[in-house]
Amino acid sequence: MTRQEHHRLRGVLAPVLTPFDADLKPDPARFVRLCQWLTRQECGLAMFGTNSEGNSLSVDERIALLEAAAGAGIPAEHMLPGTGSCSLADAVTLTRLAVRAGCAGVLLLPPFYYKEITDDGLFAFFSELIERVGDSRLRVYLYHIPAVSKVGFSHALIERLLRRYPGAVAGMKDTGGDWDYTARTIERFRDSGFDVFAGTETILLDTLRAGGAGCISATANVNPRAIVHLYETWRDPEAQARQEALNAVRARFASYPLIAAMKCAVAAATGDAGWNRLRPPLMPLDATRQVALHRALAEVAFSIEAL
Amino acid sequence: MTRQEHHRLRGVLAPVLTPFDADLKPDPARFVRLCQWLTRQECGLAMFGTNSEGNSLSVDERIALLEAAAGAGIPAEHMLPGTGSCSLADAVTLTRLAVRAGCAGVLLLPPFYYKEITDDGLFAFFSELIERVGDSRLRVYLYHIPAVSKVGFSHALIERLLRRYPGAVAGMKDTGGDWDYTARTIERFRDSGFDVFAGTETILLDTLRAGGAGCISATANVNPRAIVHLYETWRDPEAQARQEALNAVRARFASYPLIAAMKCAVAAATGDAGWNRLRPPLMPLDATRQVALHRALAEVAFSIEAL
Repeated sequence: MTRQEHHRLRGVLAPVLTPFDADLKPDPARFVRLCQWLTRQECGLAMFGTNSEGNSLSVDERIALLEAAAGAGIPAEHMLPGTGSCSLADAVTLTRLAVRAGCAGVLLLPPFYYKEITDDGLFAFFSELIERVGDSRLRVYLYHIPAVSKVGFSHALIERLLRRYPGAVAGMKDTGGDWDYTARTIERFRDSGFDVFAGTETILLDTLRAGGAGCISATANVNPRAIVHLYETWRDPEAQARQEALNAVRARFASYPLIAAMKCAVAAATGDAGWNRLRPPLMPLDATRQVALHRALAEVAFSIEAL
Repeated sequence: MTRQEHHRLRGVLAPVLTPFDADLKPDPARFVRLCQWLTRQECGLAMFGTNSEGNSLSVDERIALLEAAAGAGIPAEHMLPGTGSCSLADAVTLTRLAVRAGCAGVLLLPPFYYKEITDDGLFAFFSELIERVGDSRLRVYLYHIPAVSKVGFSHALIERLLRRYPGAVAGMKDTGGDWDYTARTIERFRDSGFDVFAGTETILLDTLRAGGAGCISATANVNPRAIVHLYETWRDPEAQARQEALNAVRARFASYPLIAAMKCAVAAATGDAGWNRLRPPLMPLDATRQVALHRALAEVAFSIEAL
């Protein structure tokens, strides 16, 4: 569920999987259907994230999918598109478009080609971006995923960005895999209105208890209802049991490449094998592993059946 | 010097520095002047490489610079533009344009966002790209720079690509920093017509003695004449002394971020401080370091004076 509480995004969002047609072009029809289904589960739409293969898309392809979703009547205030790029020019183009479309915010990777770059360089990148977009509606969520991007966000950098752009810098998706960093980030910046979303629902309860805002997780593509339910009821005595049930579903995917496994699950649930397509360099599960995953998922109750 | 020997690129190429205007937009006028000067030094043009900040440019910006160079009469057969991208769609667009412009080849990074990807996935990416471009003039040079891209080329992958696309897969720029890998790559694939370019002129002589094709090196932006001279005379008794002289120039840059230092050297040589601009997240040298570098360069003879 995404809510605008005092104009702040909260709750559970899915990095919406990107379907491809037989020619490996993004398929807006399948994409819109998944967005609509997720919206009905009160799950927000973090399209063009890592699990969306967002960086495997061109700028024009991201724009076309965003416009397809908006054109289908999906409320932009549920959307948190990934608009990051190694190219400042592209990041500005995408971010400006998202803001004008009324998106709740944008999820911004650091530029990820160069390594060992300085906080000064990252500050300059985000500073240029925020000022070039130049729109008071802009809400930037920093995307911390150092295992993939190899470039992360230090607390000193976050503090500097928050001080300079207190309205625009709104929060973070933290896929760092380091609970200590997550807890310290929430603690240090919560009074600045900086909202931390966990990068996996396996720490959703801990994140909410610590004062975080929710989660943005691959598995929300296939199990949104139960994850949203934990978000809505996290103060209940049953919350821990619900967290464990979420973890049990997530564990079924643990031995597979995550994006391929998510697409395989959607293909199985919809009966539409076309969902199994990934853009190279990512590859679909082979037939044997598809069958094995279907069996593993049949043993747990989760919500993809409704798609 | 780039030569078409049996349609093969050989010699010395510079990853052409990308100048930016005060608004951080690429500046075609300065770019063309640098390309023209390098061409007069018989240095080939590997524009849009790492040291060109190629991944900090949008697709349209890369296209505009390539067209500006071609429009200024610079022969496309001296050009080896970087056309790689995390997005297959963008890599196809750029590669197709470069081939149609008559470029000697294209320098292709592996898609570099996702980590721990398989050789199958990389093979699929290059396979899709080569087949989608679908042009017998295509010459692909694999860009091996694992310290930055974090994704490299195994010999098994090169062999598989060469077997499937013997005409299109033409060689490699090897910035791996591992001489053993370089030597083994040259040895293993030279009979397949696979040309290895060293990623730095500090191993140019070793590379040529081992059977490699030349080098593509940042420093060729500022010291092309001497590097080309070593390439042309590597069998001379004086070659080792010439290699050592190249190394002495290169060593002057060793304690600086390389791209910023190259731009600082060009700014000094041309008296045009505008050359000191980099696109974030990269940053120019600060004033103190600019002065220190100017002093260090004044002590060595190198060829930038002619620009």
